[in-house]
Amino acid sequence: MTASALERIKVYYLEKLPFNKVLGIDIDLLDYESGQAVTSFNMTKELIGNSTAGILHGGVTASVIDLTGGLSALICCAKIHHGKPPEVLDKKLASSATIDMRVDYLRPGQGRSFQCKSRVIRAGARIVVAKIDLYNEKETRIATGTATYLIA
Amino acid sequence: MTASALERIKVYYLEKLPFNKVLGIDIDLLDYESGQAVTSFNMTKELIGNSTAGILHGGVTASVIDLTGGLSALICCAKIHHGKPPEVLDKKLASSATIDMRVDYLRPGQGRSFQCKSRVIRAGARIVVAKIDLYNEKETRIATGTATYLIA
Amino acid sequence: MTASALERIKVYYLEKLPFNKVLGIDIDLLDYESGQAVTSFNMTKELIGNSTAGILHGGVTASVIDLTGGLSALICCAKIHHGKPPEVLDKKLASSATIDMRVDYLRPGQGRSFQCKSRVIRAGARIVVAKIDLYNEKETRIATGTATYLIA
Amino acid sequence: MTASALERIKVYYLEKLPFNKVLGIDIDLLDYESGQAVTSFNMTKELIGNSTAGILHGGVTASVIDLTGGLSALICCAKIHHGKPPEVLDKKLASSATIDMRVDYLRPGQGRSFQCKSRVIRAGARIVVAKIDLYNEKETRIATGTATYLIA
Repeated sequence: MTASALERIKVYYLEKLPFNKVLGIDIDLLDYESGQAVTSFNMTKELIGNSTAGILHGGVTASVIDLTGGLSALICCAKIHHGKPPEVLDKKLASSATIDMRVDYLRPGQGRSFQCKSRVIRAGARIVVAKIDLYNEKETRIATGTATYLIA
Repeated sequence: MTASALERIKVYYLEKLPFNKVLGIDIDLLDYESGQAVTSFNMTKELIGNSTAGILHGGVTASVIDLTGGLSALICCAKIHHGKPPEVLDKKLASSATIDMRVDYLRPGQGRSFQCKSRVIRAGARIVVAKIDLYNEKETRIATGTATYLIA
Repeated sequence: MTASALERIKVYYLEKLPFNKVLGIDIDLLDYESGQAVTSFNMTKELIGNSTAGILHGGVTASVIDLTGGLSALICCAKIHHGKPPEVLDKKLASSATIDMRVDYLRPGQGRSFQCKSRVIRAGARIVVAKIDLYNEKETRIATGTATYLIA
Repeated sequence: MTASALERIKVYYLEKLPFNKVLGIDIDLLDYESGQAVTSFNMTKELIGNSTAGILHGGVTASVIDLTGGLSALICCAKIHHGKPPEVLDKKLASSATIDMRVDYLRPGQGRSFQCKSRVIRAGARIVVAKIDLYNEKETRIATGTATYLIA
């Protein structure tokens, strides 16, 4: 049941959200108990935001921080609706949304591949707050963020 | 001279930043005096972040808010380096960067086309803060943001 | 009824919250229709955060931005519970809370008296987002902020 | 020399900033190498922001987050100006300022005493970003924040 909820979240994110395909996002981990989520993606020419430096576009960084924190929010949503029919869960997942987000750009987005890690710092019945960090393949933290989500 | 500085910013944004092409960004206005910037883009299937609702991906919203505020920061940068050789200006523009950003998602990102407007609320020698709003073609405000930039 | 709801908010803020007395906050306006709120306070020695410059402590600025936006949130809360008994409304008001806030310090907090203005930019059944500006007596904007509130 | 720089920061914060006395702030730790700062304060009737619940005013939380992160910024400032005469350092410390801050209110501010811990996540020549957490005496995290500082 739990595995099935996580599977629904994965399918929803990777197959139904076209912009996640543009970013080339993969999901490395979704932890039901803690709400932790880990995503990864590779640098491609399309994701560049500074031609001289060849670094990630700030919008890519913000997008990945938002969507990885969003996975944590969806896990919290799935836990709250545990036991309900899949079609109800799908509807709840699709109605959850980001309320606001802060992104701090700590270092230039240099790297060949990136990993983004989110953990839940507030898990309410309606509000989930996640803390999210983006690292490159050398484990240098490139950006950090905090995002607030409304879960249905 | 001024027109030429704005032209350099335009070329830099529209031709040298691949991710801006993915987003399909166009620049409607760059105002040298006030630092105001206006960009626009059309909804495409690629930019969708919720398949049921057919709305903008939160990452697209964040990206456009960051890059439109960034245009305001670049105008401020160009004003500070007024009179310097073009190659110096190009270097300064390329070294300017977002420090941090907050995005508030006010309404679902529904629409056929979008316009993003940025105005400068702090213009220092090093720090520029911009206030940015994203509207759809019905002039409904979808999101608002505040971003802080370090200018070289 | 409406006037009475606004009166309850005023009493709650000015008499029951000791820290608002420390700040010396007064309420200039609470607009039921729009949710707009305006507060004011005078500079005192106690509120100084930089002895050389004699300017407002950043914490005072943040406090006033939070509490003025909070007044907008309480008005939205009162509107949602319109018609319910006063003791129910009191309970709802007391359970509303700030979720998160961003403050931008635009200029040094110089002045003899200050006015803080909040307007609602998102009014949901649960979530209220307010945009808040702090001015000195010369109408120089010293700080701006955005805050998200959970209303009960 | 280093000890003396930290001593100057302590004196500046505890004796020259009146609002820090209102809050009853004490400094538990200033670490020159890492930039870490720890402050503490006790609950008093004056700091209450919700009479029913007897919890900290959100403005107090924001104030302490701002000032504790500010201590980290001042340590970074002192390191950059290492070796310069005390009067130069004093001037630099007094000209450093918060650019912006985000506060997330995670749990009601209940407690008898509080500790606030800040660590540096970006240490530039001009820009310092700190991540700050506020705990009560039971080590429950009440709030978290991120703040950006301009150092002179």
